[in-house]
Amino acid sequence: MLNKNIVDYMGCDCTYEEADIVLYGAPFDSTTSFRPGTRFAGGAIRADSYGLETYSPYQDRSLEECRVFDMGDLELAIGSSEKVLDQIEETAGEIFRDGKLPFLIGGEHLVTLGSVRAAARKYPDLHILHFDAHTDLREDYLGVELSHACVLRRCWELLGDGRIHQFGIRSGERAEFGWAREGHTDLHPFTLEGLGETLEKLKGVPVYFTVDLDVMDPSVFPGTGTPEPGGVSYMELQRAVTEVCRKAEVIGCDVTELSPPFDPTGASTAAACKIIREMLIALGTK
Amino acid sequence: MLNKNIVDYMGCDCTYEEADIVLYGAPFDSTTSFRPGTRFAGGAIRADSYGLETYSPYQDRSLEECRVFDMGDLELAIGSSEKVLDQIEETAGEIFRDGKLPFLIGGEHLVTLGSVRAAARKYPDLHILHFDAHTDLREDYLGVELSHACVLRRCWELLGDGRIHQFGIRSGERAEFGWAREGHTDLHPFTLEGLGETLEKLKGVPVYFTVDLDVMDPSVFPGTGTPEPGGVSYMELQRAVTEVCRKAEVIGCDVTELSPPFDPTGASTAAACKIIREMLIALGTK
Amino acid sequence: MLNKNIVDYMGCDCTYEEADIVLYGAPFDSTTSFRPGTRFAGGAIRADSYGLETYSPYQDRSLEECRVFDMGDLELAIGSSEKVLDQIEETAGEIFRDGKLPFLIGGEHLVTLGSVRAAARKYPDLHILHFDAHTDLREDYLGVELSHACVLRRCWELLGDGRIHQFGIRSGERAEFGWAREGHTDLHPFTLEGLGETLEKLKGVPVYFTVDLDVMDPSVFPGTGTPEPGGVSYMELQRAVTEVCRKAEVIGCDVTELSPPFDPTGASTAAACKIIREMLIALGTK
Amino acid sequence: MLNKNIVDYMGCDCTYEEADIVLYGAPFDSTTSFRPGTRFAGGAIRADSYGLETYSPYQDRSLEECRVFDMGDLELAIGSSEKVLDQIEETAGEIFRDGKLPFLIGGEHLVTLGSVRAAARKYPDLHILHFDAHTDLREDYLGVELSHACVLRRCWELLGDGRIHQFGIRSGERAEFGWAREGHTDLHPFTLEGLGETLEKLKGVPVYFTVDLDVMDPSVFPGTGTPEPGGVSYMELQRAVTEVCRKAEVIGCDVTELSPPFDPTGASTAAACKIIREMLIALGTK
Amino acid sequence: MLNKNIVDYMGCDCTYEEADIVLYGAPFDSTTSFRPGTRFAGGAIRADSYGLETYSPYQDRSLEECRVFDMGDLELAIGSSEKVLDQIEETAGEIFRDGKLPFLIGGEHLVTLGSVRAAARKYPDLHILHFDAHTDLREDYLGVELSHACVLRRCWELLGDGRIHQFGIRSGERAEFGWAREGHTDLHPFTLEGLGETLEKLKGVPVYFTVDLDVMDPSVFPGTGTPEPGGVSYMELQRAVTEVCRKAEVIGCDVTELSPPFDPTGASTAAACKIIREMLIALGTK
Amino acid sequence: MLNKNIVDYMGCDCTYEEADIVLYGAPFDSTTSFRPGTRFAGGAIRADSYGLETYSPYQDRSLEECRVFDMGDLELAIGSSEKVLDQIEETAGEIFRDGKLPFLIGGEHLVTLGSVRAAARKYPDLHILHFDAHTDLREDYLGVELSHACVLRRCWELLGDGRIHQFGIRSGERAEFGWAREGHTDLHPFTLEGLGETLEKLKGVPVYFTVDLDVMDPSVFPGTGTPEPGGVSYMELQRAVTEVCRKAEVIGCDVTELSPPFDPTGASTAAACKIIREMLIALGTK
Repeated sequence: MLNKNIVDYMGCDCTYEEADIVLYGAPFDSTTSFRPGTRFAGGAIRADSYGLETYSPYQDRSLEECRVFDMGDLELAIGSSEKVLDQIEETAGEIFRDGKLPFLIGGEHLVTLGSVRAAARKYPDLHILHFDAHTDLREDYLGVELSHACVLRRCWELLGDGRIHQFGIRSGERAEFGWAREGHTDLHPFTLEGLGETLEKLKGVPVYFTVDLDVMDPSVFPGTGTPEPGGVSYMELQRAVTEVCRKAEVIGCDVTELSPPFDPTGASTAAACKIIREMLIALGTK
Repeated sequence: MLNKNIVDYMGCDCTYEEADIVLYGAPFDSTTSFRPGTRFAGGAIRADSYGLETYSPYQDRSLEECRVFDMGDLELAIGSSEKVLDQIEETAGEIFRDGKLPFLIGGEHLVTLGSVRAAARKYPDLHILHFDAHTDLREDYLGVELSHACVLRRCWELLGDGRIHQFGIRSGERAEFGWAREGHTDLHPFTLEGLGETLEKLKGVPVYFTVDLDVMDPSVFPGTGTPEPGGVSYMELQRAVTEVCRKAEVIGCDVTELSPPFDPTGASTAAACKIIREMLIALGTK
Repeated sequence: MLNKNIVDYMGCDCTYEEADIVLYGAPFDSTTSFRPGTRFAGGAIRADSYGLETYSPYQDRSLEECRVFDMGDLELAIGSSEKVLDQIEETAGEIFRDGKLPFLIGGEHLVTLGSVRAAARKYPDLHILHFDAHTDLREDYLGVELSHACVLRRCWELLGDGRIHQFGIRSGERAEFGWAREGHTDLHPFTLEGLGETLEKLKGVPVYFTVDLDVMDPSVFPGTGTPEPGGVSYMELQRAVTEVCRKAEVIGCDVTELSPPFDPTGASTAAACKIIREMLIALGTK
Repeated sequence: MLNKNIVDYMGCDCTYEEADIVLYGAPFDSTTSFRPGTRFAGGAIRADSYGLETYSPYQDRSLEECRVFDMGDLELAIGSSEKVLDQIEETAGEIFRDGKLPFLIGGEHLVTLGSVRAAARKYPDLHILHFDAHTDLREDYLGVELSHACVLRRCWELLGDGRIHQFGIRSGERAEFGWAREGHTDLHPFTLEGLGETLEKLKGVPVYFTVDLDVMDPSVFPGTGTPEPGGVSYMELQRAVTEVCRKAEVIGCDVTELSPPFDPTGASTAAACKIIREMLIALGTK
Repeated sequence: MLNKNIVDYMGCDCTYEEADIVLYGAPFDSTTSFRPGTRFAGGAIRADSYGLETYSPYQDRSLEECRVFDMGDLELAIGSSEKVLDQIEETAGEIFRDGKLPFLIGGEHLVTLGSVRAAARKYPDLHILHFDAHTDLREDYLGVELSHACVLRRCWELLGDGRIHQFGIRSGERAEFGWAREGHTDLHPFTLEGLGETLEKLKGVPVYFTVDLDVMDPSVFPGTGTPEPGGVSYMELQRAVTEVCRKAEVIGCDVTELSPPFDPTGASTAAACKIIREMLIALGTK
Repeated sequence: MLNKNIVDYMGCDCTYEEADIVLYGAPFDSTTSFRPGTRFAGGAIRADSYGLETYSPYQDRSLEECRVFDMGDLELAIGSSEKVLDQIEETAGEIFRDGKLPFLIGGEHLVTLGSVRAAARKYPDLHILHFDAHTDLREDYLGVELSHACVLRRCWELLGDGRIHQFGIRSGERAEFGWAREGHTDLHPFTLEGLGETLEKLKGVPVYFTVDLDVMDPSVFPGTGTPEPGGVSYMELQRAVTEVCRKAEVIGCDVTELSPPFDPTGASTAAACKIIREMLIALGTK
């Protein structure tokens, strides 16, 4: 008898019950202010993950050693940010309740808020590790508070000062940088330098890890809504995410802002796929 | 002394005070369910309008005989459909109050609702002439009521039965077609046939004319969010919009759903530009 | 508990046991002589089918009334045409044995041969209805006999004279046209004219229906390996496939030669999706 | 011993001495006012011609029966319109002197002027048959007289009133249409209607035939500098060029305005290739 | 009352009178020898500049502190290089006369000549700082002297030996490199090394700064007419232009050779936008 | 008299008899497992080579000093890997017999096997220097032994242990890395480090040099079938291939896996062109 067509991120085919990590996509980009399209990231990542191998020669470990379940993309209430965030929060909450690690694939960066809301309920002492080109700390954007440009500000409202550690930031309003430097967030501009020390400080603390892929330079990752020149290289990001996933107490994470319509060569999608593989292997073989 | 860089739809450079028609863009696509990108339509249409001439050999009239003011794209509250509709309604309302005809360039089809709200306040006996591939008559879409897939249903709630005249419709849920046939709307499936008779009936009645450009076949108009094969040809649409604009009491209108990211050749944008030119000339030289 | 990510052609989610029709993809394009890429058709068609509705206003029937199972794409032995044809033949054979109709999504046109081999074993009196721009009747192509350019010739070797009915053909070598006219095949050049009479003759006869989508004009279907100007319109093809599926004793069928890398606007994929929907509804609601 | 890599339009490999027709390209687009790129047409047409067959089932004749020599693209003085026109005129002149028919592949439409200058010297009673979307009759364009937008006006200066027969014209300034209607040219707007009668009148008269491919609708031919919706279909153009090449005394011809950078699907290039094939076969088998 | 649609480089909205710096575009690419399209750079840069912020965290300064007026693109005499250069020279001359700094956005690199002609009249002791992948020192190119490939040679004719300082050069004819090394120009191959020393030497000297963006590696800047692998990184260029604009007596400048048709991801346009922002801030806040 | 259109890699126009190096293309991609298209590499490289100069400022030598003959692309038996490899082997063998160096342009990496077969017959002590992102050491791929994923394994079967020196490898199955480390090949992961020592060891030994261009990072070389992030930069590769071609006894070589359909900007093709130029100059001026 012939089987149904199950599509997952390469090799992530264990059952939900067995899984340690649960991949799910949030195909949402309604607040994207410049170029939309991140809603297609989950599908593109699953399809193109088959251009990679399950084995990482960098870590000498394989996805096959990990227990990952990929539940596909959520069916979201396009057009209503609040409903969408509720759907994401509910899904992440269910995964947390079952003692598993939720691994969210965006969509635009606002989706992180749904996942962080669920995480903050379970882990009141949560810290956020944030890789991004942009501050995302605005109070509102054109009058809208639930916007990708405000997502870390909304997270700050949940967690308070000193809980958000930002790396690679190279774009924002002067006021956002100023606000961060008042002690609200721990902002490391331009590069990933200082990550090792931050990881030292975060030992034993639950960490939510959010990776806006536009932290990479547009040369290696052009396929995003707001390309910002001057970012880190692919290998810098790969090394950093591996280090975070190996050393920190990551209890949930996400990878956001791949926009396949702006990735005609597939190179950006390939970068996203490989970053996710290295993260999954690092998380799944600890 | 050197001048500021004013960008308008070709030839539409009269002052607001002198104008009979006011062009404005609503770069909104947050509820688009399939492929976003219509937010870029206004910019693309203005830029590519310079590939056309101001003179129409079809009507033997020229844009230069018309008094059109192009105020550019609104700056919208991306991510909040209600705020966006308010902004559109307010703009259209101001134009109506000044006795001019608002000509809206979408954006996705939901933007029509803002314009129709303003029109319905001024013209309680308003009828809507609707060219589209899709019914757009859903009660809600994935739980969201302010969606491009529901826009004509929302208009019906304002105007009631028998006020909406739909042409070219070739896609929708069975329930939508059924609901229309109960007399709620006057639905002409597949083609623009019957338009002449409808225009006869609408004589003397204020008409809002909304053109979803995907009424055209994807061969001539691929650059749209949801291409639906089997549509009308470019010349069928040009003849029909000219007829409507010449014969009906058009008090406001819009042209929606051009999505430049899916128009790599520019042919769809050219079609949008030329439809707009023919409409402007027909409206502006009556 | 959260579910696996099952991806199917829209609405085709019944179980294999219940199904009347089994969709399966053959992502093969190794013999493509001009521009490869048809291997991506199955994935693109499943993804973009969600831009359509399940309901057909043309037939006033819905996919939801049909029992279709979509098993996804086969995992093929890329690089070996003979192995690939064996895999397809085996799959089609299993579906035939279970009394169901195999509906194959190519890939390049050579995949038809695997399916026809299985069909010819079960139905010795099989006829083939063939819509295409190209004759596909070469004895060999650059020394290779298992080529998309030879596929109908290979089918003829299985079935003999008078069994193959070709429509829309507008490209081939002079020798191929000459060979066809010697009575080997029933070749209707340029258009779909004469289809009604052929369907009359085929009453009660088992028919395998193979649609090379490049029978459509490149204006509506540019996304194919060898675009050949001068083809039929989308609506001509839709009407014809509906007629065939309603009137003929179709025991198996395929739709081939969509090449997504050459479909930047998605219009070709949309045309393929809708043709498949109309065929499925016509076959599944008889 | 291994051979040099000779690249020609498919099948056009006879020697210059034997040839009746000489194909040559003029990769020039320096005066293009909207979107440049036609300089790449010759290369694209040669490369993609191998997606076609040498045999035309429409004419039941083959390129192999014709004696055509393809000398490739000229190496032009990019940036100097006058030098470029001299180079073209010289090449066409040499071909005329050798008693052969020059068949020029543009480039933008201005290249026609070089070829017509050579033709007019040899044939003082020359008429021009002109298929185009645009009038091309301006006195100057932004102060420049050697512009694609003025090319037929420049030809008129060589030939005088009544010698230029224009078909398919649907864009231009009001003044150009007016000037034409004063009797300067024989302008047939919008379609190819009236061609038969014109061919009757031109019996026995030397005709230069210039085809701006944008006479076709952008649905079938989007890949051009200035797409103008509302054109003729591919088959209408194919039938018309075949008729002209069979019935008129064509002494030289050109096909211009394919712009490969705006042809991501290759459909426009395929249309250009096939139009050229039908013209070559019609001219070469008379 | 509603306003006209003024489109400028982000934040550059002061009046001409108040301005210190005047941005203007020259949409010219008629002598481009390989792939045209730079004419679209000005429009693309203005549109995509809104993906950036006005604040530079690198310089801790904002565009809002600068007085920049953007007059848009000139309307040029396409097809006549001499007329185009005259138009540019006249514009730059007017800006110089009003005591402001002209900041030119190309177009191809030939446009620099118009601006340098105006500068050399006002500043006889002018030096040129030239960042580029290519020497641009040919005597002529295919017989044409006003060509992008000759532009620095033409500038040398105005200024004489030792006035032109070239960095990043990695492509040219052997003769060009040889000619430069005879002392005609100060050529630094491959990288931007040595810039600091050159800036030392240029203290107090009026400098025209011309940036051919193809000095960057095609990985970060593919969208240009002639991509030349092996260039500098984005951050190397950003640091260098900032240093130049802060330390040198820049009296005029340009940024050329962005070709949007070859920038499908927008990454090249983003790089151009950000380089311009850093230059404007460095120049405008001295 | 006018000449035939000979198309070659820039400047490679000497006769076969005079040549030291013979360029030829193998437009084959039938076993490509992910994204086909490398068949178009030869044509794209020839066309775009004219965007480069013949002179290398890095080596201070010019292609004009080299004797290279470009015979164009082979006409291959698409669909039959064995026949294709025979055709390549035969061509390479003829070139070897004539005492010249065959320089093969792929196509996918499998084409190397044909060339290596011919080389191994003439040079029994042959070593292979292999730059690649992928191991290419599988026993079979989905049951097929003649696959790009197996090509170095097939070469190993010809040559035995210790003869294959691999650099830059960053993707493969765990089993492939393990098999290599058993001493079958000399595998240098991730980078080109250690190349100098390997070249020392290979002094006096005949070397076949095979460059899979995907050894470069997708930022600089996205246009390939299976982009693998984390590769070497363009300049690292350029320096390494120059060193190999200058120091090793290269008796044959190839450059494979450029896929023009995934290179919309042309940057990947430019990188391939320049790598080939540097290799040709290094080989041709020793």
